[in-house]
Amino acid sequence: MTIANPTAAMLVIGDEILSGRTRDANMHFLAGELTRIGVDLKEVRIVSDDRPAIIASVKALSAGYGTVFTSGGIGPTHDDITADCIAAAFDTHIDVRDDARAILQAHYDRQGTELNEARLRMARIPDGATLIENPVSSAPGFILHNVHVMAGVPSVFQAMVASVLPSLVGGAPLLSQTLRIQRGEGDIAGPLGKLAEDFPDLMIGSYPYQKDGVYGANIVIRGQDAALVDEAMVRLASLFPE
Amino acid sequence: MTIANPTAAMLVIGDEILSGRTRDANMHFLAGELTRIGVDLKEVRIVSDDRPAIIASVKALSAGYGTVFTSGGIGPTHDDITADCIAAAFDTHIDVRDDARAILQAHYDRQGTELNEARLRMARIPDGATLIENPVSSAPGFILHNVHVMAGVPSVFQAMVASVLPSLVGGAPLLSQTLRIQRGEGDIAGPLGKLAEDFPDLMIGSYPYQKDGVYGANIVIRGQDAALVDEAMVRLASLFPE
Repeated sequence: MTIANPTAAMLVIGDEILSGRTRDANMHFLAGELTRIGVDLKEVRIVSDDRPAIIASVKALSAGYGTVFTSGGIGPTHDDITADCIAAAFDTHIDVRDDARAILQAHYDRQGTELNEARLRMARIPDGATLIENPVSSAPGFILHNVHVMAGVPSVFQAMVASVLPSLVGGAPLLSQTLRIQRGEGDIAGPLGKLAEDFPDLMIGSYPYQKDGVYGANIVIRGQDAALVDEAMVRLASLFPE
Repeated sequence: MTIANPTAAMLVIGDEILSGRTRDANMHFLAGELTRIGVDLKEVRIVSDDRPAIIASVKALSAGYGTVFTSGGIGPTHDDITADCIAAAFDTHIDVRDDARAILQAHYDRQGTELNEARLRMARIPDGATLIENPVSSAPGFILHNVHVMAGVPSVFQAMVASVLPSLVGGAPLLSQTLRIQRGEGDIAGPLGKLAEDFPDLMIGSYPYQKDGVYGANIVIRGQDAALVDEAMVRLASLFPE
């Protein structure tokens, strides 16, 4: 398998790194993952939540490198402007899209939370973009041309990177299933490690969360063989009965 | 005191961060320092040791922001090309400069080490540039137009940032003196903390090193009042007799 243009660039969007409040984690993670699969990360830019800066950077990086990854700015608040900036950079129409709205609606229905106007912002997807699965918190990323738009929250960013990496090296797309387990990772880790050993052809990831004081994790099982993923999910569910 | 254009950008040069081998420390440090003095870090770019990429980034950032900081690529090896790229970006002549050579010569004479051709590369300074003091390992950085060129090694980078920050906010330049103490920082820390308390108007920094298995630290005392710096240096020397 070869990659047509095995160069990549990353655009990190958000004031918190530029102010020194947060130390970058996503760039370091992506750099390691790309090195592992033989893609050469050639440039990273970090800009603030500033529309002209985001648009100019997206255009420059998209034209200069084979693949571009962005992190940050796709949440529900007014300063989450990445999706609109990507649409503007490619002169593409953007609005709430039905497929993304359905994903959010199902997620918030399960949680018993209202899909209000702020949350609906996360369903704004440019025309023609392909959605990127978010097994952690549902709100999808997307791919437009060679730009992969992903979340800034490190656990979500990492899950999205896992979703898109196989296609970069020409592999078959991965199927995934998610199980939400309301126990601390310390209780999950042992049985999960055993499960991973029993299914060496699958990728099994744990994405911890804390909500209203309750610890839990989204366990994501990925693989190319649908039957094998099903089998592992059944085993996983039996390991952690409600 | 006001700053004419209180915006800044940073250019990090080096493959080790893009490959994921090293996690950035300099950007996070600089971001915090700039926030502290009210300078707004607006953009960071990270590029590899690649001449066209460095030159293009320097030009873009220098034109777009009030102050630019670079880190990395000013050491003695063949892939340390930052100084030459900065000269090229500003169409300026560069060669080994006598003032920088004298600093290196004095440093290596003290160490009993030869100033060979590789080390002499670190004296290549563009015409018209102002040197930035390096109290840790001598080899200077420099300022050309609004670009501050500094080392990638975090302890040296931090010492250079301390050297240049006061001038950014319009303060008088800091005078500095350095004492090399061949003891571990654990032995130095107590007396040094007391000294810092006794001289609240001075900045007292400790930059540890390990050389040939021996631990030590360069203690740098900075201040605007030469007599006060002298007084503190005398006290420091008396605390740690040879």
